[in-house]
Amino acid sequence: MNTFGKIFQLTSFGESHGAAIGGVVDGMPAGLSVDIDEIQRELDRRRPGTSDMVTQRSESDSVEILSGIFEGRTTGTPIGFVVRNSNQHSAHYDNIRHTVRPSHADYTYNAKYGFRDHRGGGRASARETIARVFAGALAKQGLAHFGITVSAYASRIGGVDCDVPGTISEAMHQAILDARAANDSVGGVVTCRISGCPAGLGNPTFGKLSARLAEAMMSIPAAKGFEIGDGFALADMRGSDSLDLWHSNPNDSRGISTASNHSGGIQGGISNGEDIIMRIAFKPVASIAQAVSTVDDMGRDTILEVNGRHDPCVVPRAIPIVEAMAAMVLFDALLLNRCSRIDS
Amino acid sequence: MNTFGKIFQLTSFGESHGAAIGGVVDGMPAGLSVDIDEIQRELDRRRPGTSDMVTQRSESDSVEILSGIFEGRTTGTPIGFVVRNSNQHSAHYDNIRHTVRPSHADYTYNAKYGFRDHRGGGRASARETIARVFAGALAKQGLAHFGITVSAYASRIGGVDCDVPGTISEAMHQAILDARAANDSVGGVVTCRISGCPAGLGNPTFGKLSARLAEAMMSIPAAKGFEIGDGFALADMRGSDSLDLWHSNPNDSRGISTASNHSGGIQGGISNGEDIIMRIAFKPVASIAQAVSTVDDMGRDTILEVNGRHDPCVVPRAIPIVEAMAAMVLFDALLLNRCSRIDS
Amino acid sequence: MNTFGKIFQLTSFGESHGAAIGGVVDGMPAGLSVDIDEIQRELDRRRPGTSDMVTQRSESDSVEILSGIFEGRTTGTPIGFVVRNSNQHSAHYDNIRHTVRPSHADYTYNAKYGFRDHRGGGRASARETIARVFAGALAKQGLAHFGITVSAYASRIGGVDCDVPGTISEAMHQAILDARAANDSVGGVVTCRISGCPAGLGNPTFGKLSARLAEAMMSIPAAKGFEIGDGFALADMRGSDSLDLWHSNPNDSRGISTASNHSGGIQGGISNGEDIIMRIAFKPVASIAQAVSTVDDMGRDTILEVNGRHDPCVVPRAIPIVEAMAAMVLFDALLLNRCSRIDS
Amino acid sequence: MNTFGKIFQLTSFGESHGAAIGGVVDGMPAGLSVDIDEIQRELDRRRPGTSDMVTQRSESDSVEILSGIFEGRTTGTPIGFVVRNSNQHSAHYDNIRHTVRPSHADYTYNAKYGFRDHRGGGRASARETIARVFAGALAKQGLAHFGITVSAYASRIGGVDCDVPGTISEAMHQAILDARAANDSVGGVVTCRISGCPAGLGNPTFGKLSARLAEAMMSIPAAKGFEIGDGFALADMRGSDSLDLWHSNPNDSRGISTASNHSGGIQGGISNGEDIIMRIAFKPVASIAQAVSTVDDMGRDTILEVNGRHDPCVVPRAIPIVEAMAAMVLFDALLLNRCSRIDS
Repeated sequence: MNTFGKIFQLTSFGESHGAAIGGVVDGMPAGLSVDIDEIQRELDRRRPGTSDMVTQRSESDSVEILSGIFEGRTTGTPIGFVVRNSNQHSAHYDNIRHTVRPSHADYTYNAKYGFRDHRGGGRASARETIARVFAGALAKQGLAHFGITVSAYASRIGGVDCDVPGTISEAMHQAILDARAANDSVGGVVTCRISGCPAGLGNPTFGKLSARLAEAMMSIPAAKGFEIGDGFALADMRGSDSLDLWHSNPNDSRGISTASNHSGGIQGGISNGEDIIMRIAFKPVASIAQAVSTVDDMGRDTILEVNGRHDPCVVPRAIPIVEAMAAMVLFDALLLNRCSRIDS
Repeated sequence: MNTFGKIFQLTSFGESHGAAIGGVVDGMPAGLSVDIDEIQRELDRRRPGTSDMVTQRSESDSVEILSGIFEGRTTGTPIGFVVRNSNQHSAHYDNIRHTVRPSHADYTYNAKYGFRDHRGGGRASARETIARVFAGALAKQGLAHFGITVSAYASRIGGVDCDVPGTISEAMHQAILDARAANDSVGGVVTCRISGCPAGLGNPTFGKLSARLAEAMMSIPAAKGFEIGDGFALADMRGSDSLDLWHSNPNDSRGISTASNHSGGIQGGISNGEDIIMRIAFKPVASIAQAVSTVDDMGRDTILEVNGRHDPCVVPRAIPIVEAMAAMVLFDALLLNRCSRIDS
Repeated sequence: MNTFGKIFQLTSFGESHGAAIGGVVDGMPAGLSVDIDEIQRELDRRRPGTSDMVTQRSESDSVEILSGIFEGRTTGTPIGFVVRNSNQHSAHYDNIRHTVRPSHADYTYNAKYGFRDHRGGGRASARETIARVFAGALAKQGLAHFGITVSAYASRIGGVDCDVPGTISEAMHQAILDARAANDSVGGVVTCRISGCPAGLGNPTFGKLSARLAEAMMSIPAAKGFEIGDGFALADMRGSDSLDLWHSNPNDSRGISTASNHSGGIQGGISNGEDIIMRIAFKPVASIAQAVSTVDDMGRDTILEVNGRHDPCVVPRAIPIVEAMAAMVLFDALLLNRCSRIDS
Repeated sequence: MNTFGKIFQLTSFGESHGAAIGGVVDGMPAGLSVDIDEIQRELDRRRPGTSDMVTQRSESDSVEILSGIFEGRTTGTPIGFVVRNSNQHSAHYDNIRHTVRPSHADYTYNAKYGFRDHRGGGRASARETIARVFAGALAKQGLAHFGITVSAYASRIGGVDCDVPGTISEAMHQAILDARAANDSVGGVVTCRISGCPAGLGNPTFGKLSARLAEAMMSIPAAKGFEIGDGFALADMRGSDSLDLWHSNPNDSRGISTASNHSGGIQGGISNGEDIIMRIAFKPVASIAQAVSTVDDMGRDTILEVNGRHDPCVVPRAIPIVEAMAAMVLFDALLLNRCSRIDS
């Protein structure tokens, strides 16, 4: 339930107001030179407090690697890691201990487990994604070894599309600031592109690469939609407009390439060597600084007034998480593919 | 790679022009009375040739159950089943054996496996979904035992929204007939609703119910997008408009209910007891009766002219498959949830 | 629960008196030329009625392969197969329907599932092993592609050790015939040797090759003990007598070899390139043609008198099953090992 | 590869001379009151330096729990834990960095991964078992909640059987001291008994309870043999002597019991409610304070002289590890069994 991947696997643990977030990365092949500073930079990208668009909280999120790397290289054994929690204001949550926050996991956790760690969302907190970014950073280094890169950006925030891929436009920025000024929040869309991916990754049936990516992305907190290639727009196309026609191309390592990429680099669940492109929809943050009606643990009507620091928009911080999940799926598929042919 | 589920598992096999499609359903608890006629009716729903909107091919798709059911009830042991292929016109495919059909799995299979069964799509054929519908029919009966129902419908075809959920409107029907007349195809969207689902199903992190449903749906041939609840529309909402506010409700078994359902019945990856609602985008069929440019197995430019029978629209036949995949995910989550508390 | 393996996986189904035994072999890499006659010969080896030492029952056990092999080679897609049951005398079992046979799975199945298919042992029947032998035969052909062979023999029957490995001596044969004459049964030990195995297969911790082999062997009906290398005898040795000392050996592909093989070819859970040797203990058949006291389904004391045909000794028929399980474990480990190093 | 279990899962990490040993316990149901002092006591049982029979090394092995327990009870979320390594004398190993110790994992690790952390055995060190004992201690508390107990003892050391189960006799003690005096080591056998286990746990085919226990036990460092019930002795019995005859027993909760327990509490892979009894053979420690011939990393003949502290016998320290592995298997089976019947 807390393990992700088939060969390259992350098992994660940790609540926002417990001692630490961490996990185990298993299945990393031996012999990869690891840049630990680069891992820390990835963690810093998802950290709150790095701009006026995200939570004003300072946590260092410094990772300690406990095993699996020896003299700078992976040994093939599991990589244990922890990131200590700090700056915890657990008492902030005492007054909402018995309040069921709307569109949070409060009621659903109670329904599942009978009780919950109410402080800061517990396991449902975005701090859980630290473990994903750590494992994703390792996966990225594994992919880079084979010339594969993963990059994501905010393509839409608060109803505003970005002008230049990879940038947050002034209008997008303003949408976030407006929401904050209104004690409100906004959602958005992250677009992710995988380049340099060889053809042949993924599986034909349940393990379609698109299905694994969908599962990965929809497991990110606040994700509510996923599409590959032209996605929902394909539902409105005629077949004749949707085909990615192959033509010979001596400049491409495959000897062929497609004129378009409506499929988003995946056909029949398997990569075709074109860029893999996907979009993920994130809902607006549910914690807003407004009084809202709700119920308590006993089902009685009450009013919730949230204190504490919350992002007006999760999208900027979701970007490295999207990249991490994509990298984990791809690296896993790359390894699994070594078993596709009897003579590999 | 060809197994789906954690406790309730389907392992499937079969190519469109091989001897049979079939599989093994494992993890079905003992003691469920099974209505085998109802399973056959589900298989008949996905069968081609049942209306003028789908392929004019007649196959009986009659299932034979080989094990796991004794005197009308499940025994807890694996349920083996086969559906024989018939009406195969393998020779139809001889002339395209070395042609790479655009937006099909031809090139990607070759890239992965080194060669492929070229007849009718092989494992990438829609006939593979027979196994899903069989397992889904069993899962539906398991869910029905606990009062949970799954139903899907075509909510959009060829750019036309349906007027009344559960029906295919005249305009939608016409969009399909127009595409056929133009030797073309159209895509669409299937909406699926799960009713009667108890709160507490799913998992907080990687096993989010929404992530499992996304994986399940994106594993269906031609699926290109997935959203839960308001999905991509949530990305454009303000937080204050997106909250599903709880209020006390003595008429509900939970004692509470929500005034809206933007979340689609899942919060923090776990069901909240509201209806679970999702939408899946299907691309138009890639096989169209038009000459298209492409390449052959050697990467040389060529022209493809498709013969044979193809659906102008997969959406009507996708409906029972969507239901089947949803039922498998839910029934699996229902069983897994028995281990959530020490005193269940 | 009915799936075995990580990459190369068998999922099996079938009861002794149902319609068929069968399963799905998934994870077989593409491109292996398959000798189907050889698979049938392996199935014939485990078939009853082939000598006076085993059950006098004639079943053809002819396998039908339904998918996954195209023009004589594996396609990388799942291989479905069925072996029809025939010669069923289900009525033989009517009079013991409510009797709990001692040292059988009758009581335990009832305890687990609430009821059971009582005919001939149902899923607990030795016919279930047909699926193992089929998958093992494929695994053997995969291993042979890399020069690895698996062979087992009865090393002890009825308390009599074999003189020449691979043969059943006159004294062993007589022990079986004596037991049959006494309406009784005998147990024995199977020894299995894997030759040509490269060093490096297996995993250090839970996935030790010795642990996987132990799981595989102890999953065979009637298996009650397992040892690798010198096994229990090692428990009585001094360390200085137990070491497998390495020395340089220019004639060995590793450049080194060991002077002894107390370890049985596995050290720290990973193969060292020496032959892998293991022994498996099988209890005597529990069905004997003698009246024995027992209880019925209601817990009332009763007397059981068994009719029907039963082996006086399972060991001869266990040999191909042991080989099959060993081959599955090894081939799976061989494939998994492709992911051990970043540059494979 | 480093995860054990289906529902109740341990994922472990850590080398003997890295920063820490630890892991994640996933699948622990919510609501169990946890006695953390009791967990520490289990860890202390496996710690070296606690008697003159084991390594004279002092490490506190104090565990830090990082998540998953809130206000004394399990929350249903993963339980992360670490035990810091201390008292490391890594330099001790510098002179054997390029020496291949016989009957160790040195050569096999090199063969698998291309290189290894040579210090103290790395991942192959017995310190890895700390994670097992931690998870096993949690599993024991889960089992105790349902009245199930697990206890093991040294039943044979250095060829000497114990007189009274649960004690180490003077003769056994002397065998260890004799070996130490001779700069040598001895092996032995651990017997494990599970009491209070309900009937119905385990699975009929690959997931036989006996197979899972065998896998668990054979994954313990130095384990070379496993038997359930009478084990290898059953191979020499006649069927008529081996039957565990059922008789009515109004004093037993099942209403019946068996007169003997040759099967060791498991029939057809499923528990029958009698005590589960198994024996595990451990080889003598391979590190002895004698000069032995071997090779170096380049395959050249050399002499190894081991320094450092080593147990003359692993058996006393193996006892809590055996209990831990047994407890994990049983608790996992107990949880899985909740899905055996449609109405649980």
